[in-house]
Amino acid sequence: MTSQRPDYQTILETIYAEVLPRLGEGQVATYIPELAKVPIKQFGMAIYTLDGRLFSIGDATMRFSAQSVTKLFALALAYTREGHGVWKRLGKEPSGSAFNSLVQLEYERGVPRNPFINAGALVITDILASRFVDSEIALVQFMRQLTDSKTVDFDFKVAESELTTAHRNFAIAHLIKDFGNMDNPVSRVVRSYCRQCSITVTCEELARAGSFLANHGVIPWSGEQLLDASSAKRINAVMLTCGTYDAAGEFAYRVGLPAKSGVGGGILAVIPGEAAVAVWSPGLDASHNSALGTYALARLTDLSEQSIF
Amino acid sequence: MTSQRPDYQTILETIYAEVLPRLGEGQVATYIPELAKVPIKQFGMAIYTLDGRLFSIGDATMRFSAQSVTKLFALALAYTREGHGVWKRLGKEPSGSAFNSLVQLEYERGVPRNPFINAGALVITDILASRFVDSEIALVQFMRQLTDSKTVDFDFKVAESELTTAHRNFAIAHLIKDFGNMDNPVSRVVRSYCRQCSITVTCEELARAGSFLANHGVIPWSGEQLLDASSAKRINAVMLTCGTYDAAGEFAYRVGLPAKSGVGGGILAVIPGEAAVAVWSPGLDASHNSALGTYALARLTDLSEQSIF
Amino acid sequence: MTSQRPDYQTILETIYAEVLPRLGEGQVATYIPELAKVPIKQFGMAIYTLDGRLFSIGDATMRFSAQSVTKLFALALAYTREGHGVWKRLGKEPSGSAFNSLVQLEYERGVPRNPFINAGALVITDILASRFVDSEIALVQFMRQLTDSKTVDFDFKVAESELTTAHRNFAIAHLIKDFGNMDNPVSRVVRSYCRQCSITVTCEELARAGSFLANHGVIPWSGEQLLDASSAKRINAVMLTCGTYDAAGEFAYRVGLPAKSGVGGGILAVIPGEAAVAVWSPGLDASHNSALGTYALARLTDLSEQSIF
Amino acid sequence: MTSQRPDYQTILETIYAEVLPRLGEGQVATYIPELAKVPIKQFGMAIYTLDGRLFSIGDATMRFSAQSVTKLFALALAYTREGHGVWKRLGKEPSGSAFNSLVQLEYERGVPRNPFINAGALVITDILASRFVDSEIALVQFMRQLTDSKTVDFDFKVAESELTTAHRNFAIAHLIKDFGNMDNPVSRVVRSYCRQCSITVTCEELARAGSFLANHGVIPWSGEQLLDASSAKRINAVMLTCGTYDAAGEFAYRVGLPAKSGVGGGILAVIPGEAAVAVWSPGLDASHNSALGTYALARLTDLSEQSIF
Repeated sequence: MTSQRPDYQTILETIYAEVLPRLGEGQVATYIPELAKVPIKQFGMAIYTLDGRLFSIGDATMRFSAQSVTKLFALALAYTREGHGVWKRLGKEPSGSAFNSLVQLEYERGVPRNPFINAGALVITDILASRFVDSEIALVQFMRQLTDSKTVDFDFKVAESELTTAHRNFAIAHLIKDFGNMDNPVSRVVRSYCRQCSITVTCEELARAGSFLANHGVIPWSGEQLLDASSAKRINAVMLTCGTYDAAGEFAYRVGLPAKSGVGGGILAVIPGEAAVAVWSPGLDASHNSALGTYALARLTDLSEQSIF
Repeated sequence: MTSQRPDYQTILETIYAEVLPRLGEGQVATYIPELAKVPIKQFGMAIYTLDGRLFSIGDATMRFSAQSVTKLFALALAYTREGHGVWKRLGKEPSGSAFNSLVQLEYERGVPRNPFINAGALVITDILASRFVDSEIALVQFMRQLTDSKTVDFDFKVAESELTTAHRNFAIAHLIKDFGNMDNPVSRVVRSYCRQCSITVTCEELARAGSFLANHGVIPWSGEQLLDASSAKRINAVMLTCGTYDAAGEFAYRVGLPAKSGVGGGILAVIPGEAAVAVWSPGLDASHNSALGTYALARLTDLSEQSIF
Repeated sequence: MTSQRPDYQTILETIYAEVLPRLGEGQVATYIPELAKVPIKQFGMAIYTLDGRLFSIGDATMRFSAQSVTKLFALALAYTREGHGVWKRLGKEPSGSAFNSLVQLEYERGVPRNPFINAGALVITDILASRFVDSEIALVQFMRQLTDSKTVDFDFKVAESELTTAHRNFAIAHLIKDFGNMDNPVSRVVRSYCRQCSITVTCEELARAGSFLANHGVIPWSGEQLLDASSAKRINAVMLTCGTYDAAGEFAYRVGLPAKSGVGGGILAVIPGEAAVAVWSPGLDASHNSALGTYALARLTDLSEQSIF
Repeated sequence: MTSQRPDYQTILETIYAEVLPRLGEGQVATYIPELAKVPIKQFGMAIYTLDGRLFSIGDATMRFSAQSVTKLFALALAYTREGHGVWKRLGKEPSGSAFNSLVQLEYERGVPRNPFINAGALVITDILASRFVDSEIALVQFMRQLTDSKTVDFDFKVAESELTTAHRNFAIAHLIKDFGNMDNPVSRVVRSYCRQCSITVTCEELARAGSFLANHGVIPWSGEQLLDASSAKRINAVMLTCGTYDAAGEFAYRVGLPAKSGVGGGILAVIPGEAAVAVWSPGLDASHNSALGTYALARLTDLSEQSIF
């Protein structure tokens, strides 16, 4: 890494200028009816550094559906209770197949490959459901603490929309249940999972929320140690190898940062020891990652020479 | 990362003391008859820093069969000729299955998932066979340059032993050929691949050989730019997501460094901007990575706080 | 086939004598708690010839859980309404994998391989649910007509037991729904399917029930044409290639008759132009077919020279 | 079956009239260059009854490449030496996947599903190679005996053409070898297999050749018992469940006879106790079975009411 601090605001402006003429690239996720309505020509990006500075550009204060980005916070919350014990229930290997495939899950007898494919996220949801009286509320409160924002909340319309088309997730959850790796009723777990996915955030909130992972598990502004340094580092490792669907290799290759993406078009990336970065643009590439979001992060690591490699 | 330089020699001694009573853990690879004869109770480790210091411990000057670690150098050599063009012939995603499986290769129509599974390495060998009059000699010369050692060479006994039991690799190569992704004759490519795998190195040589990847593509002692900085960074990313067989996630989680392992018991790891590390101990874990080698690298990143995460 | 009529009663007695010392072979199905309680040392067999003679031996009037044998009658009932149109929704190829696997179903995008694996049976149940006000009652009435017995009925205790452990079937049904190949709600289809499986019959009833398939679609005692001759022949063909789980090849090889088996230990076989045969013994072999039932049918075709081959 | 003997010549003429305007349907196999040159607009059919009558129509005396139809004779020849012992090396279940897939073979550890997919045929070839000094000559002599024709022979041009494009078969054979289920060198087995596939026959010869399978293992004109009745019956069963690639279920459904097809456009079917039927037309359907050949056999069983079901 460079000894001199990058000029983040200039970098964001450079990226924004490059991205503006390309707004509209990719495809908005259509399998959740509510998400299909989101206008594609939007782009926001925010950087929160560990010394407490916030940089942002574009639609960085627009709310969007966090979707699978919430899998990261659900994992972190489970970690605060179970520690490394979460790995008794699931693996931490990249899946090599689609995020919602049942094939691997059947071959591997109901033990999901990692916490960031749907199967793994459903197991994490099951863990939370056993640990908290109301696990959905617990997660929202955790995210409010991490974002330092009281406005983080469910979008019940999206949650309902998601639940009515959640056949694939029901299939996955029942298969996990069949293999004995789910303690709570399938209906409760899937409903809870759909609500979790519906949580909305802004880029500025999301950048803030990821900063403890760049900071050895400590929330920068409060000094609270949410996770020990080793756990934070390990979650980053899982993000890098599994965080961007079946394109984790390509993403590591192009961007070179641990990151978690969602089909709402958001991506949260971590620059260990330095900052967290959130980007949002609803158009997805073939791997279900935000097309312009991935581009923007690749440019950020190029311009700031901040890749972990 | 820490601002103070780690005391590598002390760290190596600490690790060695921990490892000594555990010598013999794991299983020596048995599927290549010649490798099965290697005594298991050996351990060596070496660190080569970018400022030119070499630290080592144990059997760090013993020669061992580099095996799949050579896949890294074959990829780098191909990169010097084809650049990013190598990715027209193969992917860079983790495979999610055994290193020698044909299942995924058939589903994905002869395009190997990445250059570090056997299928991908055979495609790289094919690329080299098209680029060089004698691609095996070219690779050995490349490794002599990288290790700064003229003694790096094939072990023809191992190469022969490997060739006579190479049915699986022949199967893979013929399947790739069937899908039209192999230009040279299968027999030539597999023989060349077996020779490549047989190359022997020491930990000290291997640490030296990896240092250009930690140094933005520049050989530290000569200043020669082998690869541009971006390519070096990208190879590191592929190592992290794909370099340790089907345990890349677990390895990233425990060790947190880009690395490439071989069934001879060697592992080469890269600490970007700082050093390259080689470790060797023939006992393998269930994922075909050196059991004590993985342990030693995990301890190194703990003790030196050098994880990229 | 022989010109002389076989002496079925003598054949049954021969088989029974051979089977008696072997009672207890195989394993009673344990995944449905209620079925696990069935005493294993039972064996019954019945032959109903097209000229109206009934031969039986052993526990041929004991009621047992028909389980997957009902898939045959559900298919026949669907055929009476949809004819060859049922094949728009599913295939007629052997599956080459376990009867309840999701792997193939996902690769083939929700179109089950055949009506006798669980996925296919769930689609048939969905078809019936769309065709009848109360499809379960319709099926029981159809089976009462076919068995010429008013006592055929559900075993609600078994149905409930099955429903509470039906996670795998729920997973399959949701996956089919996700691919758009299920019209009715998953919960309704799976409940209906569990009830269907719970129907109890005796060997004597079952032999009678299969006779229309041996008789070109005509119920022998009433002369009613349930299916046209071509449809009856085609259902027999599907039974032969798909009727005995993943052992259809082995079964055709040993027995040489179209047949449908169930995990309750029942098997219904058809001797075209001649008779239907039912056998029941609860101990299952590794392929989930009744171990002694399969043996008994193999002996029957040997002793009577009645194989279709 | 009907008591009256069908008028086969009239039936053949009826079928021929129906088929003539459709000549050209389907696609000639293109993956073997020599086969791709065969004119598509050809159709021949022959019936050989157990009482020694031969009926034929169209191009029934044209020679064509038997291809996979030879797998049937290779199996029968292996049976004459090994009996049921052949099943120690392979299974008899339908495969549920493409005839040349490696996926299932890898999951099932080198034990092919049945003798009629390429993997299984390669194992049968290996068995013959161990049993005979020159197994290819042995097979040709066996087919000369079965066809009662001295002109049955290899087409070396086709054999060579096949060998140069046999990458997939080499891959399969090497994978089998890797799992320890091949005794002879891969190169010998694949070459022998390619020669076997190249054998040419006419419909009239082929109908004759199949008649022993309809006749309890006895060659009708010589009275020689090639196989015992039970073995003949069992081979018929394997043909029915596995003989027509991944369309065995559809074929049983439409035609209702045991049959073995080849990509040369030939199909041999058996009417147990009555006759053998050969049909040839080079245009293949999507399942690699002769399109008009399958149609003609379906019509034959309709018109003669000769289905085994």
